[in-house]
Amino acid sequence: MFAEDLIPGTAYDLGEYVLTTADIVGFARQWDPQEFHTDESTTGFFGGVVASGLHSMAVLQRLSVLNAYCDWAVLAGRRIREASFLAPARPGMTLRACLVIDRVDFRDDERALVTVSSTLTAGGTVILATVNELYVLRRR
Amino acid sequence: MFAEDLIPGTAYDLGEYVLTTADIVGFARQWDPQEFHTDESTTGFFGGVVASGLHSMAVLQRLSVLNAYCDWAVLAGRRIREASFLAPARPGMTLRACLVIDRVDFRDDERALVTVSSTLTAGGTVILATVNELYVLRRR
Repeated sequence: MFAEDLIPGTAYDLGEYVLTTADIVGFARQWDPQEFHTDESTTGFFGGVVASGLHSMAVLQRLSVLNAYCDWAVLAGRRIREASFLAPARPGMTLRACLVIDRVDFRDDERALVTVSSTLTAGGTVILATVNELYVLRRR
Repeated sequence: MFAEDLIPGTAYDLGEYVLTTADIVGFARQWDPQEFHTDESTTGFFGGVVASGLHSMAVLQRLSVLNAYCDWAVLAGRRIREASFLAPARPGMTLRACLVIDRVDFRDDERALVTVSSTLTAGGTVILATVNELYVLRRR
């Protein structure tokens, strides 16, 4: 799908991802080694270990690529305009990702800037809400 | 350091991280499996494999935790207000991270919302620029 094929308002169900303790701790040890992300036995502010916000963003990106961007002629990501960490992501949670195309701005003959809003939810609770901008090729 | 100890305008040199092809491809296969991040032999738009934007954010977070947040009474991340991918991060690059405390807003008796601006640079080129908000405990 080229930029011309991406219709604002289109929504994608991007499927699910089950968070495990090993996954949370493994990601955090490498990229976000704060005690409330790396210590399984923590009893701090969150009352248990929680995923790094970056980890939740990585889960959302994985599901976005596998279930939407894989069919788009993506040139590059340009900007994350906002990523809000609205509730903690905990071990055992099943995270569901959704994406909506907000805007398709045709910049030049070659590419468009596509704005998408995405969420990661667990049950009815929003864990992460993001707005991203990416460049997508136009049909030549 | 509690929120009262964090002075707006303070700058941190967070040190360096050397990006390897294996690191770029390994991260991307797991979290951002797009061909321009996962295929070492790609010759697409960027003329070679480039790191996922999320990977560059993960490098910045790692350096921020190890060299700044480790000394702060961080409660939780609240929001990434912006993350701009300004230039590609390529294999072999030495990425240098810097952070500046922008604001410390005392919200209640317990915590403050701290805003920080950070960059990841390679040579003189800015690869990634972010603005983050995190909650930091006040001194009790």
